[in-house]
Amino acid sequence: MALTIPKRVLLKQEHFKVAREHRQKVDLELEAQIDILRDNKKKYENILKLAQTLSTQLFQMVHTQRQLGDAFADLSLKSLELHEEFGYNADTQKLLAKNGETLLGAINFFIASVNTLVNKTIEDTLMTVKQYESARIEYDAYRTDLEELNLGPRDANTLPKIEQSQHLFQAHKEKYDKMRNDVSVKLKFLEENKVKVLHNQLVLFHNAIAAYFAGNQKQLEQTLKQFHIKLKTPGVDAPSWLEEQ
Amino acid sequence: MALTIPKRVLLKQEHFKVAREHRQKVDLELEAQIDILRDNKKKYENILKLAQTLSTQLFQMVHTQRQLGDAFADLSLKSLELHEEFGYNADTQKLLAKNGETLLGAINFFIASVNTLVNKTIEDTLMTVKQYESARIEYDAYRTDLEELNLGPRDANTLPKIEQSQHLFQAHKEKYDKMRNDVSVKLKFLEENKVKVLHNQLVLFHNAIAAYFAGNQKQLEQTLKQFHIKLKTPGVDAPSWLEEQ
Repeated sequence: MALTIPKRVLLKQEHFKVAREHRQKVDLELEAQIDILRDNKKKYENILKLAQTLSTQLFQMVHTQRQLGDAFADLSLKSLELHEEFGYNADTQKLLAKNGETLLGAINFFIASVNTLVNKTIEDTLMTVKQYESARIEYDAYRTDLEELNLGPRDANTLPKIEQSQHLFQAHKEKYDKMRNDVSVKLKFLEENKVKVLHNQLVLFHNAIAAYFAGNQKQLEQTLKQFHIKLKTPGVDAPSWLEEQ
Repeated sequence: MALTIPKRVLLKQEHFKVAREHRQKVDLELEAQIDILRDNKKKYENILKLAQTLSTQLFQMVHTQRQLGDAFADLSLKSLELHEEFGYNADTQKLLAKNGETLLGAINFFIASVNTLVNKTIEDTLMTVKQYESARIEYDAYRTDLEELNLGPRDANTLPKIEQSQHLFQAHKEKYDKMRNDVSVKLKFLEENKVKVLHNQLVLFHNAIAAYFAGNQKQLEQTLKQFHIKLKTPGVDAPSWLEEQ
């Protein structure tokens, strides 16, 4: 039978085959990018969840540190022999509470920015991806129709149908190509935007924590000076065993 | 009537009056010490409760920091452009988790020692105080009996009763004096012991926290060096607004 298939038809088939293989290559690259984006979104959501948990826990700890600060201060007033010991513990807990609140501000700023990136910017791109995917399903359907008609007889009866099918195929091919283009453009911009936002937020997150520990350390040293404390004291050759623990 | 009261009786009354006034003075001083001890115990119990809350909160935060460390590390491996940013955040969170556990060990040591002081050492003294207080109630009862009998007639009929009452009074006076002495001795030793224990524990508590922040700060600086990070970076002229927050 194959021998009777007109050359024209064979050429059309050949044309489709080449075009499809090219498209499939492009699509596979796009697919890969989309899979990575969806995978990254999950990972960023996890970071977001953990940062929110950390924020809640720090908030609660700051509350406890403030209460400890007050309790130590009260005992400092009422204990002659332990006035200093309660005193610098009060100062330290109050300092940690104060700086903890500042750190909390930075962590919550990180959370807000990453939340916008994940649930607005990335989500918006994934909506376009969904439209692209349904455009491809429609396109594939019309392409299959046309291919089947082209393999059938061509006469006064079928030619209008082929004509019609050709139009539908063309329209959905254009829509699909447009969507594919939209998606790859959006993915490109998203990638640039994402890297910029995350770079700033990750540096902020890290430096806020570094500043928190640096700040406390500086101010703790002042407390120690103020109370003339040597860090080595009976019961606290600790720093050593603390490290070994 | 008063004129008919024998001189002997008046002298006895006078004797009782002086003795009682002296005893009352001693008792008042002891009462004051006991009130302070009971008040302090409440305050120490509050510190203990808060330190236990802090320990629980730090434990949970360390858990979150470890999870964040792993999540950042995973993203560091899989992100070319943000490899470093995720990388030093991973290192920092893992460092905080590690040192947080060490601090946790110090806080729990503080809790255990203060708990022993409050719920064993102080509690034991307060048991002796209770015995002293009931000894005084008995003593007061027998004293009143004897005083009343001494104000009544002295004849063959009453003399044995007075004799008997005199014995009971004497026995309970000795028991009471012994208890009073036990209490003031215990209070004295407790005070010395308490000051020694609390001094060491308060210095440990403070220095463990200072060591924690100092340790993190030293190691954070190494992380920053390792990653060639300047603490001033786009999005993080932060330290300034962080402080203003």
